[in-house]
Amino acid sequence: MLEKYGHGGDLLTAAELYEEAGGTFLDFSANINPLGPPPAVLELLRSALSTVVAYPDPGHRRFKSLLSENLGVESSWLTVGNGAAESMALLLLAISPKKVGIVEPCFSEYRQLSVQFGADVLSVQGTREQHFRAGIDEIAGLLEKVELMLLGQPNNPNGVQYAVDELRWLAQKAESCGAYLAVDEAFIDFIPEAERNTLLPELDQFPHTILVRSMTKFYAIPGLRLGFAISHPELAKAMTGKQVTWSVNGLALLAGEACLESGREYERRTRELIATERELLRQGLLQLGCDVQPGEANFLLCGLPSPWSAAEMQSRLGRVGILVRSCAMYPGLGGEHIRVAVKGHEDNLRLLKQMGEILAGK
Amino acid sequence: MLEKYGHGGDLLTAAELYEEAGGTFLDFSANINPLGPPPAVLELLRSALSTVVAYPDPGHRRFKSLLSENLGVESSWLTVGNGAAESMALLLLAISPKKVGIVEPCFSEYRQLSVQFGADVLSVQGTREQHFRAGIDEIAGLLEKVELMLLGQPNNPNGVQYAVDELRWLAQKAESCGAYLAVDEAFIDFIPEAERNTLLPELDQFPHTILVRSMTKFYAIPGLRLGFAISHPELAKAMTGKQVTWSVNGLALLAGEACLESGREYERRTRELIATERELLRQGLLQLGCDVQPGEANFLLCGLPSPWSAAEMQSRLGRVGILVRSCAMYPGLGGEHIRVAVKGHEDNLRLLKQMGEILAGK
Repeated sequence: MLEKYGHGGDLLTAAELYEEAGGTFLDFSANINPLGPPPAVLELLRSALSTVVAYPDPGHRRFKSLLSENLGVESSWLTVGNGAAESMALLLLAISPKKVGIVEPCFSEYRQLSVQFGADVLSVQGTREQHFRAGIDEIAGLLEKVELMLLGQPNNPNGVQYAVDELRWLAQKAESCGAYLAVDEAFIDFIPEAERNTLLPELDQFPHTILVRSMTKFYAIPGLRLGFAISHPELAKAMTGKQVTWSVNGLALLAGEACLESGREYERRTRELIATERELLRQGLLQLGCDVQPGEANFLLCGLPSPWSAAEMQSRLGRVGILVRSCAMYPGLGGEHIRVAVKGHEDNLRLLKQMGEILAGK
Repeated sequence: MLEKYGHGGDLLTAAELYEEAGGTFLDFSANINPLGPPPAVLELLRSALSTVVAYPDPGHRRFKSLLSENLGVESSWLTVGNGAAESMALLLLAISPKKVGIVEPCFSEYRQLSVQFGADVLSVQGTREQHFRAGIDEIAGLLEKVELMLLGQPNNPNGVQYAVDELRWLAQKAESCGAYLAVDEAFIDFIPEAERNTLLPELDQFPHTILVRSMTKFYAIPGLRLGFAISHPELAKAMTGKQVTWSVNGLALLAGEACLESGREYERRTRELIATERELLRQGLLQLGCDVQPGEANFLLCGLPSPWSAAEMQSRLGRVGILVRSCAMYPGLGGEHIRVAVKGHEDNLRLLKQMGEILAGK
């Protein structure tokens, strides 16, 4: 199975599984900005390589200061993580919840990390009719039974968002019942006018709400690991208190600083490319007879036409050097779902062509 | 205070504290190989920078396989960490000890991480007469009262070793009383014939003993974060079970692979340089009237002649661009102790010259 470690983007396992592909893959299984990192980032890393002889700044001071400026929040509200996954882990360690709530299907680390750090997981199920979101009443009901709720905005693997009114209502509910609401915004940067879909501007009203963000997907640096959380300073302090010194490496901090200074043009180009290409991919997959969810992020959840299974399609594509994510392991999704990243134009066309040939039995 | 975050090597704080130094420092406060990384490592990183667009291997497979070959232990005995500090954190999370034992003075993270993850810390005190080691009987007595004992070999900040017979006796004791013994070998690579001073060859007899090692000090890549632990596979599995996916970044893994392939010549040259220069530094410090511990690692613990305090010396050196570690915060060491790394010949001479001038009241 390609998801040997529970995730997409595992090129080493791919090379072992699909020897006939010759070791080079077009990777639709990880949701990374197809533009690659802003050019200034790789240049900076090249010129700063010799800084690896020094320890990273344990206080993440420069990166935090730039983030603070960029987001318009005080530095004391920020916790820098060794990837967004560490930010979630620090949250779990800080809160020590006995029960965590999630909406299936979702990023598998919500359950994985919760169990890893000793919590029981309660879930509600998103349905096909709601594009695999759950009803807000159901989520609010779950909030009453747990100490922490983890929610994707937009959610992975379906790419669907909640309205900001719904999130606000959940955040109010979290305050009233004393539970924490963590909104995972790892993919929010890909969404145009994302500021309309986040509680960031009103976060000071919700000390029980935490926003988790990633630098690695939008800026295409997953190999370096960099994420952060925004929360009330008291919670930020508790999270930092659980972090291992120098957990965030020096090149990640430098790259993060360069990303934030890379300007709006790269961001604009990314969102434009993703919007255009996602529509192309969606139309193409629909024409192949797939059931495509109306995702708004840089990936699409796609049900294959009967009798195709995700496992079979993944394996057939793998052998010709294309990786897609099988969603068979997501509770609540049938074995027919795959998730594909939105990549550059030629790559997307190649995926559609290969899938077309496989589905046509060629 | 230079150790704002509890450690040496904090160049950003140094730049804030000692503006008159103009931002460039000769750093004796962090114990890093003065040769810098093996040249092949920086070359590999330069050519592999574009791999940051892919996720790191969550299984650390190539690095583990090289480590396994290099150390002659099965891969299942290895846990790769985001720095040795993460390896210790994973151990604490896996064992969840209520009580941890340490010998003061020691690496401050032993206490810091233990408290961070909910343990009480019990300690015995090394004495001046024993070069700040504790008696083995005392340590064995402490082992009976705790679930985990953390011990440096060689120990930081004094650089002194325990005999392998003593370690073996403690490991046997750990087995008989059911406690875990973690031997922190972060600096062992700097010691000639280190294989005589480690329980590595007989580790299969001691399922309660864990060896923690660092790649960042000997190979001079602290900015990248890479360490590992060697332990019985059952414990290794429990530690990995507490690790956040992709915690170890991709460039660290690549650098680690290149370090292990860099050959014996770099290792030999490092040990030779350290041995020669440590002796020069020791003699020089003695001539300045300091009380120097007989450390065998790449640093020396040094008591300043009365009435000098570490704080005053650190500040005076900082203003001329030289950083040393104040050891005033180590319980059991008086306020007169500093720790200096062993660096290259010219750098060591410069330190001695500056300290000489300061002590002479120039």
